[in-house]
Amino acid sequence: MSDGMHDTSLAAAYQDVRRRSLQLAEPLSDEDCGAQSMPDASPVKWHLAHTTWFFETFLLEPREAGFVPFDAAFRVLFNSYYNGVGARHPRPRRGLLTRPGMREVRAYRANVDARMGRLLAACPDDAALASLVELGLQHEQQHQELILTDVLHLLAQSPLYPAYHPAGHSDAALAPARASEWMAFDGGLVEVGHAGAGFCFDNELPRHRTYLQPFSLASQLVTNGEFLAFIDAGGYRDPALWLSEGWDAVAQNGVAHPLYWIRQADGWHVFTLHGLRPLDLHAPVTHVSLYEADAYARWAGARLPLEAEWETAAAAAAGGSLADLFGTCWQWTASSYAPYPGYTAAAGALGEYNGKFMINQYVLRGASCATPPGHARASYRNFFPAGTRWQFSGIRLAR
Amino acid sequence: MSDGMHDTSLAAAYQDVRRRSLQLAEPLSDEDCGAQSMPDASPVKWHLAHTTWFFETFLLEPREAGFVPFDAAFRVLFNSYYNGVGARHPRPRRGLLTRPGMREVRAYRANVDARMGRLLAACPDDAALASLVELGLQHEQQHQELILTDVLHLLAQSPLYPAYHPAGHSDAALAPARASEWMAFDGGLVEVGHAGAGFCFDNELPRHRTYLQPFSLASQLVTNGEFLAFIDAGGYRDPALWLSEGWDAVAQNGVAHPLYWIRQADGWHVFTLHGLRPLDLHAPVTHVSLYEADAYARWAGARLPLEAEWETAAAAAAGGSLADLFGTCWQWTASSYAPYPGYTAAAGALGEYNGKFMINQYVLRGASCATPPGHARASYRNFFPAGTRWQFSGIRLAR
Amino acid sequence: MSDGMHDTSLAAAYQDVRRRSLQLAEPLSDEDCGAQSMPDASPVKWHLAHTTWFFETFLLEPREAGFVPFDAAFRVLFNSYYNGVGARHPRPRRGLLTRPGMREVRAYRANVDARMGRLLAACPDDAALASLVELGLQHEQQHQELILTDVLHLLAQSPLYPAYHPAGHSDAALAPARASEWMAFDGGLVEVGHAGAGFCFDNELPRHRTYLQPFSLASQLVTNGEFLAFIDAGGYRDPALWLSEGWDAVAQNGVAHPLYWIRQADGWHVFTLHGLRPLDLHAPVTHVSLYEADAYARWAGARLPLEAEWETAAAAAAGGSLADLFGTCWQWTASSYAPYPGYTAAAGALGEYNGKFMINQYVLRGASCATPPGHARASYRNFFPAGTRWQFSGIRLAR
Amino acid sequence: MSDGMHDTSLAAAYQDVRRRSLQLAEPLSDEDCGAQSMPDASPVKWHLAHTTWFFETFLLEPREAGFVPFDAAFRVLFNSYYNGVGARHPRPRRGLLTRPGMREVRAYRANVDARMGRLLAACPDDAALASLVELGLQHEQQHQELILTDVLHLLAQSPLYPAYHPAGHSDAALAPARASEWMAFDGGLVEVGHAGAGFCFDNELPRHRTYLQPFSLASQLVTNGEFLAFIDAGGYRDPALWLSEGWDAVAQNGVAHPLYWIRQADGWHVFTLHGLRPLDLHAPVTHVSLYEADAYARWAGARLPLEAEWETAAAAAAGGSLADLFGTCWQWTASSYAPYPGYTAAAGALGEYNGKFMINQYVLRGASCATPPGHARASYRNFFPAGTRWQFSGIRLAR
Repeated sequence: MSDGMHDTSLAAAYQDVRRRSLQLAEPLSDEDCGAQSMPDASPVKWHLAHTTWFFETFLLEPREAGFVPFDAAFRVLFNSYYNGVGARHPRPRRGLLTRPGMREVRAYRANVDARMGRLLAACPDDAALASLVELGLQHEQQHQELILTDVLHLLAQSPLYPAYHPAGHSDAALAPARASEWMAFDGGLVEVGHAGAGFCFDNELPRHRTYLQPFSLASQLVTNGEFLAFIDAGGYRDPALWLSEGWDAVAQNGVAHPLYWIRQADGWHVFTLHGLRPLDLHAPVTHVSLYEADAYARWAGARLPLEAEWETAAAAAAGGSLADLFGTCWQWTASSYAPYPGYTAAAGALGEYNGKFMINQYVLRGASCATPPGHARASYRNFFPAGTRWQFSGIRLAR
Repeated sequence: MSDGMHDTSLAAAYQDVRRRSLQLAEPLSDEDCGAQSMPDASPVKWHLAHTTWFFETFLLEPREAGFVPFDAAFRVLFNSYYNGVGARHPRPRRGLLTRPGMREVRAYRANVDARMGRLLAACPDDAALASLVELGLQHEQQHQELILTDVLHLLAQSPLYPAYHPAGHSDAALAPARASEWMAFDGGLVEVGHAGAGFCFDNELPRHRTYLQPFSLASQLVTNGEFLAFIDAGGYRDPALWLSEGWDAVAQNGVAHPLYWIRQADGWHVFTLHGLRPLDLHAPVTHVSLYEADAYARWAGARLPLEAEWETAAAAAAGGSLADLFGTCWQWTASSYAPYPGYTAAAGALGEYNGKFMINQYVLRGASCATPPGHARASYRNFFPAGTRWQFSGIRLAR
Repeated sequence: MSDGMHDTSLAAAYQDVRRRSLQLAEPLSDEDCGAQSMPDASPVKWHLAHTTWFFETFLLEPREAGFVPFDAAFRVLFNSYYNGVGARHPRPRRGLLTRPGMREVRAYRANVDARMGRLLAACPDDAALASLVELGLQHEQQHQELILTDVLHLLAQSPLYPAYHPAGHSDAALAPARASEWMAFDGGLVEVGHAGAGFCFDNELPRHRTYLQPFSLASQLVTNGEFLAFIDAGGYRDPALWLSEGWDAVAQNGVAHPLYWIRQADGWHVFTLHGLRPLDLHAPVTHVSLYEADAYARWAGARLPLEAEWETAAAAAAGGSLADLFGTCWQWTASSYAPYPGYTAAAGALGEYNGKFMINQYVLRGASCATPPGHARASYRNFFPAGTRWQFSGIRLAR
Repeated sequence: MSDGMHDTSLAAAYQDVRRRSLQLAEPLSDEDCGAQSMPDASPVKWHLAHTTWFFETFLLEPREAGFVPFDAAFRVLFNSYYNGVGARHPRPRRGLLTRPGMREVRAYRANVDARMGRLLAACPDDAALASLVELGLQHEQQHQELILTDVLHLLAQSPLYPAYHPAGHSDAALAPARASEWMAFDGGLVEVGHAGAGFCFDNELPRHRTYLQPFSLASQLVTNGEFLAFIDAGGYRDPALWLSEGWDAVAQNGVAHPLYWIRQADGWHVFTLHGLRPLDLHAPVTHVSLYEADAYARWAGARLPLEAEWETAAAAAAGGSLADLFGTCWQWTASSYAPYPGYTAAAGALGEYNGKFMINQYVLRGASCATPPGHARASYRNFFPAGTRWQFSGIRLAR
């Protein structure tokens, strides 16, 4: 799905990406790395091991002469969801695996990295190898984002408000955002999906035609201040604003504000990777579910964009008329996650990467502050269930 | 949303539809009418009362001078999901309402029918009235279908295999179905959504353009025999065929065949409204979830149609090239239930009719053997969660 | 376990008890008789059929020449918990058995009664038969009490407050209760358990010695007024008064008053078999769990009696120094339900009657307003889990 | 409740007990110490902190001039269940508290130990202080046992079978146990409960009279080999052997052998603190629930002892006629955990130590291999819910 990187550049990319995963774990204790705060999240240690398992399973095993796994038990422990590769450790119980410990997992990484280095050096022009390595690196970048979202969720469980990175400056923009404007687009017959030579996931293909009505997108993301107005107007208490399922979720869980917002005597705060901070009214609202995004949009007399609208606009927005397309937060769309016309999953276990999740999930577009630099693109399709709140998910309005 | 029926024809239609609901209850005892076999189903008595509540609430209350409700408590007991109309009795507890009994509910129906008769006679040319009455009748027809699906589910709970309608002939086709062929369609820019003067629900509007790749649909529905081949080939045990969520549902609930199939010493049987019958291999398979339909399609090297493909083909299929479009079983599509571009819900409580369910549900097209005659049409959008099996839901393949 | 009744007196007793069960169902519709309001309760229809199943299974089947069951399916449908007799219909799904209906169940009763009549006439002096028949009648009386408690719970689910027996006078005492006094007992070595010739259940045997410290029992049951003082003093909000498990149950379920108490604008009411009534402050409090009884006792500076204390006092109380021993409400004791020293269950399936429930249940002594006249005695051991509230359960203090 | 230890001996005892807790954590990584394998278990780190919290809260806070807590947040985080001391962190979420880490908890222990040292030195003859310190040490010993049981449960979650203490010799007896014999006791009026000057918990008081029938106890505990015979005879599949609730638990959880037994191709193994070991048929069976113990006893034609029987026999068994009274495994009794006649809980928060758990739990007597030496005695009352299996719980038969 790309023309790949190769020669020394691929080996260098491999080292860069792999090193960054360990850097993300640096501010954390071994205890931090072992805990799992909910079934949807995984321990940092597990992310570090699973991404290594990916290279061991899909690269080393089929290509290394006399392959011997680093540890046979790791084949089961660190398989995420690939039924085609055999048994798996149950996902909600990943936090109970105190053995192997972080030391063994670091050794596992070092071992696989050394063997991968030899493999890459031995096969400098193997396009199929390069393609798989690149998939593994993109996969690892996806888990780098999850490391940050999962750590944030874990630290939020402690009443001590511990910071992942205390010295860091605030997530929030220092300067007030500009007022949002409606950017109009013609629609009509457009093409969406990945084009060109770079890497993409299989769910971005094939590029295909679709038809759009004329539409407008907001130039700015919805801010904390705007969302607070929705709260203060009773938005969480008016069923007319909500999808039926969203209303039930809000009622059942007593949801009355975005995840990580905390009301204290001196006003609203938000728990971030830098600890507890006063709520920045000018920063984009994040950690809202699709239900909340949809209710806000209805309250604001607007709607959420279709993913094809977002992609078309993003492709046309080179001049920067749409702010925060990438790097602030993922943006919920109204599109359910479905295969593109003519989509075919890869053969074998890697075919499980994307296709089997195309049910009851919704697409988010863009990229967040937790997304590794260079990872995302206009055709990138992120997806989560509608109730998801622990991702850096925000709102761009359409109409 | 229609040009309505009026004058005597509307009053006659009212009487016809209302009478048919009672006819559906005739083979049932009061005990049968009171029970609720699962939260998704409702007692027949509740259906009979709720459809009456609809006319009382949306027609009589705003239009009858000196309106007095038949029974104030019924306003809460028989509200289904209209938050805009006030409190509701919890859905999973409808089967515990032994009071009011069937006798009172019959009296309720007779009372509202008499008052509706006077209202219709008094306002012969009131188009708004006619439109609301028609909505109420279409609504009642939807509940007529649910009466049959819910009764089938209830009777299936008894080890006695009681028949709803023992004297009836089999649901199954007597003659073998013809072999299925692939019917090819060009796709391109098409228009979908309701057109013309007749009634439609708001979710069928607005009619709008969409773009389709060339596609083919199977001329016949998947049969019990074909589905049995999938079972015998181990289809329920191969995770590669399943959506991830479907695989989990199958594993968790031990699903290994369509709902109501029962394996006995002398072969497969199926529980129907006419009791337990030997499985007719030539009849279309029904009572499968979207998960099962999708897995079957993948196994068969095909896919499920998009709702726009189905509608386009149905509109072009006047000559009958596609069998069983209506009247046998609803046909799962791969399309999530979403608003059409420009969709707007009605104002007030009736705006809750469709729009708020447009999340995590999938569209079925066609009509089933339980659908009242004349109720469905090519643009009709039925919708249920992907795991739904107690509806008459089947499979038409696409590719 | 008794010298039995025989000759005409047994046949007459049979008819009396069996007739009374049907009388209890007279104020109810068929719909009322079919519904099941929670897994712990059963439909009236089920009680009527199960008690009949008992005679068919334990009397007719082993003793009737050429025995043919009334309906083979009933053997499974109406078995309660006798593993030794084969399969059972799942308890929480009893309310879904709309077939057989009440008409068939009445026919089932009439059929078994006729055959029982012939059996009794044919074996006038069969002591073993008489003993089993008596067990069946005592068993039916236990279900007569459950019919009333289960109907009360079912009717309480309706917001209409329907009365089981509207014309009846209040449950509540008309005259104020006399002030409670402490009745002192010496304790020491005492004998408890059933003595004498009359019927008893196996769990009342063997009569045996036990040692009691000196103790006192309250002459009167705790009244609604006294319990209201506990509520008004914040009793439900003070964890120091509660057993840990009780505190969790209260918190989890939001319990703040006895079951069936309803606070309205004009004060406290209570839902009874005669409908909604103003709370009678002089009547004994009922429908409290052991947790609530224990918390009240601790608040009142007292404790709950041991079952041996209650029985010893009841045996000594012929002069009436202890009011309401029988006929008002069951009285929670602090004694867990355990076998008496030397207890042996009956052989065969009837051995499942009592013994296998001797775990995590607590003993109640006395009898309630729903207990059939003549059914209970001083050695009678009723038992329910500590959280049970739908029985007529009240409080007698000890210290 | 004792005459206490004082002067240097108390300070020395304090240091000994406190040091031993840290020694128990030595074979464990920080990750091991942070994980919680189920709601009933706690992380080792939590045990280490909570026992420290006990001294800080009940000793330092009321007695230290100018008391300042080590960390105010720890007051909430490490409160177990004392409602009287304020808010608590939810028990099932203790494993998510990666902050504070083990390093901070060690600092917390050192800080409190230093302050306790000063307090003890300053008040050499304060009997009330000595009594509270002794309670704190006994409390810490109880948690030392839980550290071992909880670590065993945690390590059992890993498919790697990691050993807590690999070099250790087997738990199992090296020599075959002698055949069990029935030791007969007269019963009659006996006294049970703690007597004498040493420490005891409040639930062992007051010593009081009770009456026992003549009884016999088995001289040996039930062995793995004997329990295997029960399994091989189909004991887990015969409902006639089980308490109703036990049968349901076995069926629901698919229980077919004691916890930690693992059947491999080469026979039965058992997971222990020393890793996976072949099952020693001569060693006492452990890790069985009361349900399993009761079913085994019924199958063996015996029963479980009453706690008064056990205590009476243990007191009379100085000559050693009863093997393994202490130090192998706790022994289930048939006695529900209830207050002794005249029991009064301590005033204030410490009154929550025992009394509020006297409901739906059953008494175990003796002591296990995980119990700190010197901690238990004949009058000691351990208690757990009937389904508990992760404790070192075994079976001594009675009849």
